[in-house]
Amino acid sequence: MSSPQALPPLRLGIAGLGTVGIGTVKIVQRHADLIAARTGRGVEITAVCARDKTKNRDADLSGYAWETDAVALAKRDDIDIFVELMGGHEGAAKDAIEAALATGKDVVTANKALLAHHGHALAVAAEAAGRVIRFEAAVAGGIPVIKTLTEGLAGNAMRRVMGVMNGTCNYILTRMESAGLPYDQVFEEARQLGYLEADPNLDVGGIDAGHKLALLASIAFGTKVAFSDVVLEGIGRISIDDIRRAGDMGYKIKLLGVAQMTGRGLEQRMTPCLVPAGSPLGQLQGGTNMVVLEGDSVGQIVLRGAGAGEGPTASAVMSDVLDIARGTRLTTFGQPAATLKDATPAQVTVAAPYYMRLELLDKPGALAKITAVLGDAGISISRMRQYGHDDTSAPVLIVTHKTTRDAIDFAIEKLPATAVVNGDPVAIRIEEL
Amino acid sequence: MSSPQALPPLRLGIAGLGTVGIGTVKIVQRHADLIAARTGRGVEITAVCARDKTKNRDADLSGYAWETDAVALAKRDDIDIFVELMGGHEGAAKDAIEAALATGKDVVTANKALLAHHGHALAVAAEAAGRVIRFEAAVAGGIPVIKTLTEGLAGNAMRRVMGVMNGTCNYILTRMESAGLPYDQVFEEARQLGYLEADPNLDVGGIDAGHKLALLASIAFGTKVAFSDVVLEGIGRISIDDIRRAGDMGYKIKLLGVAQMTGRGLEQRMTPCLVPAGSPLGQLQGGTNMVVLEGDSVGQIVLRGAGAGEGPTASAVMSDVLDIARGTRLTTFGQPAATLKDATPAQVTVAAPYYMRLELLDKPGALAKITAVLGDAGISISRMRQYGHDDTSAPVLIVTHKTTRDAIDFAIEKLPATAVVNGDPVAIRIEEL
Repeated sequence: MSSPQALPPLRLGIAGLGTVGIGTVKIVQRHADLIAARTGRGVEITAVCARDKTKNRDADLSGYAWETDAVALAKRDDIDIFVELMGGHEGAAKDAIEAALATGKDVVTANKALLAHHGHALAVAAEAAGRVIRFEAAVAGGIPVIKTLTEGLAGNAMRRVMGVMNGTCNYILTRMESAGLPYDQVFEEARQLGYLEADPNLDVGGIDAGHKLALLASIAFGTKVAFSDVVLEGIGRISIDDIRRAGDMGYKIKLLGVAQMTGRGLEQRMTPCLVPAGSPLGQLQGGTNMVVLEGDSVGQIVLRGAGAGEGPTASAVMSDVLDIARGTRLTTFGQPAATLKDATPAQVTVAAPYYMRLELLDKPGALAKITAVLGDAGISISRMRQYGHDDTSAPVLIVTHKTTRDAIDFAIEKLPATAVVNGDPVAIRIEEL
Repeated sequence: MSSPQALPPLRLGIAGLGTVGIGTVKIVQRHADLIAARTGRGVEITAVCARDKTKNRDADLSGYAWETDAVALAKRDDIDIFVELMGGHEGAAKDAIEAALATGKDVVTANKALLAHHGHALAVAAEAAGRVIRFEAAVAGGIPVIKTLTEGLAGNAMRRVMGVMNGTCNYILTRMESAGLPYDQVFEEARQLGYLEADPNLDVGGIDAGHKLALLASIAFGTKVAFSDVVLEGIGRISIDDIRRAGDMGYKIKLLGVAQMTGRGLEQRMTPCLVPAGSPLGQLQGGTNMVVLEGDSVGQIVLRGAGAGEGPTASAVMSDVLDIARGTRLTTFGQPAATLKDATPAQVTVAAPYYMRLELLDKPGALAKITAVLGDAGISISRMRQYGHDDTSAPVLIVTHKTTRDAIDFAIEKLPATAVVNGDPVAIRIEEL
C-alpha cells in the first residue's frame, strides 16, 4: 500500500530461457506500468541465464546481464528474486536455488520435480534464511491452485484434493475417444506434436502429475512432501475399448490424482480413474487442467484452465513475483516447515466402486460363474451389461458397489479358474465426486 | 513465517450473527490449532454484536463480549479486525466500518451492496488510515475469486470477467428447465424454500449479482467501482418457452454478468444471456456459482463452487482473516485507490450473435417478410428453425451472426408493420465463450 515511489524496483534474475522464461520476460516488459500500479513498485529484470547466448529467442534480452551458470546468477548481488525456470530435479536448478537462498534472495520456481523430491529441505533452508520459495507455476500451469489452497481455502480442513494435471495425458485420452484411435497411435501423434517430455514416461507414466499431487497434498494436509508415497499408474494400458465401454456406462477415463487424509494415513494416487461423464472432471477435454479442492467448510471448489504453455505458466510465475513485490511473505507449504508432519502412507485405499470389463467365453453358465467369484470376494454388483458374442467371447461390463482394491485383486486372481474368461480382466476405480 | 509464539493473537470483533457470522464463529472455534499452524499466531474472537442477545444461535458465544451497537464494537480497543457481516448498503454497516478504520482496525466484510455503493470512498479511507478492507465473501461465496483476480492473475491485463453469481437465479432457471415449470411457479417455490432476499428484486432483478460484477470490474480494470453503470436486466421475463427453444438450438439461458474494457469504455452487463449448453457455464446447475476470468497471458480460468451458505461464505471470511494474520497487506481493489480511474461506461455493447424467437402468423410469404426486416437492419442469419403451426402461429427461432443490440432493437421495432408476427418478439444476446 506504499506509493509507487516508496520502494526501489524489485530485481529479477531469470534462469532458463525456454518457453516459460521468455514468457516471463515478455510480461515484465509488456506490463511494467500495470505491475507498478498493482504492487506499488517497479519490477525489472537485471540478469538472465541460459547456456546458449546466440540462440534466437522471441524477446529482446539486450538490456540484461547474461550468465551461463545458474549458480553465478543466483549469487549476483543485483537481484532480489531468483526465478528458476530451468527444470530438472537435481543438479544446476537445485544448486542455484540453494545458492540464491544462502545469499538472501527469494525464489520463484516452476520446478515441480525438484520440489517433489527436495521441497521440504528447500523449505527448511528458505525459512532459516528468512526467504520465501513460491511455486505457483509448478502445478497446473496458469490455474492459481497453490494460492487457492494455501490462502483462499486456508480456513478449511481439507478433505480431498483431486486433479487432472497432465494435459498431455488428457489430450491422449480424449483424442482416443473422439477419433476412435488406439493408444499407440495417439501417443505417436502427441510425440509429433511436441506434447511429450523427452522422457515420455514423465507424462504418460503419471510421474509429472504425481509430482504436482505430492505438492498439493503437502499444503492440504500439513505434511512433508512425500512423492515416493504416491501410487503411480500411467495411461499406457488404457484401451480404446475401455474408453468406449466406460462411456456406455456413463463414465470418462481420466488420469486422476487424488490425495486424502484417511484414518489409516495419507492416500496419494495418480492413476486412471472413471469419473461421471457429466461431471466437470468428466467433461474436461484436451490439454486443459482441472483441480478439485474439497474443504470442510467450503465444500467443493473446481478450478479449470490451461495447464501449460508460455502465457499461462508465465502468468503463474508473475503471480508469485507480484506477491513478493507487494510484500506478501508466505511459508513454502502453507505453514512453517518445522511443523509439517511425516505422513504415514495409507496402505489401503478408500473403498470405491469399480468398473470391470471381462471377455466372457460362450459357455453355459458363464455369467453365473463370474458373479459367484465376485460374490466370494465380497464384491456386490451395482450394474452389469453384457454385449452380444462375436466369434467366441462377449464383453461384460460391471459396475460394482463400493469395494476395495484388495477385493478386486482377489477376484481377478480367481477368475481364470472359472475357465469362462478370455484374456485379462480390466478393473478401474470409479472416483466418486 | 514467525514462530507461533512470536505474535499475540489476532482479535476479531464480529458484527452480525446470522448464518455467515455464526459460520465464522464455528470455524474460529473448531480450527484454532490449524489456524495457528498456518498463520503462526492465534486468531480469537473478543466481541460480537447483534441486536438480540436472547436469540438461540447455533454456537457458544458465552466467552465473547457482547455489543448491541456495531459502531461501539468497531471502536473497541480489544479488537484488531472488524468483521462486518450485517449487510445493508447504508446505515449501521457503513458507520461501523468507518469507525473501525478511524480507530485503526482492519476490516473484513461480506457486504457487496455497501462496497458496490461506497467501495471507493471506503478504500480511500482505509488507505489513509493504513488499514485494509478485504471482501472475499462478498463475491461468489466460497469461491476465492477476489484473491484469484487480485493476486493469482495479477500479471495479466484482464480482457473479460464473466460470472453466474446469483445462485437463486440460476436455481430458478435450471429448475424451470428440469421441471418444465413457468417462472412464476418456480419463483414461488424459491420463496418458500427461503432462497429469496426479503426484497426478491435484489435476486431476480440482477441487483445482487450486479453488485458483485461491479466489484470484480474494479479490480480487473483498475477502475473505480461503478455499480450505477451496470446494465441490469432480471430474469422475470424469461419464459419456459425460451428456455426450451434455446435448448433446441444448443444453448442454456443464464443470468450472466460480463465486464470488459472496450475501445469505447467499460462495458458492465448483468443480463440474461445464452451460452453454449456444453460449456462450463452452460452446464452449471442449481445454486452453484461460476466465474470466468480471461487474462491476456493466462487465457481463460474458470472457478466453480458454492455461492452462498454458512460454510462456504464463512470460509471466504476466514481466508481474509488468515491473510491478515499472516501479515498480507493488500489494497482494497488491487492497486492504490488514488490510482483507480473513472471508467467511461460503454454506450454500445460489444457485438454478439443474438437468439430471436418470433411467433409467425400462418400467412403467405411471412418468413420472407421477417428476413427482409432483419436484412434491412443489417442483421444476417446464421441459423433458423421453424416449427409447425398450431392454430394460427408458428415459432421461428433465429440465431443471428454478430450484430449490435441497436440493430436488433431496430428490427424489433419494424416487425409489427409486417403484420405476420404474433405477440412480442424475444431477443437474447448469445455470449461467446
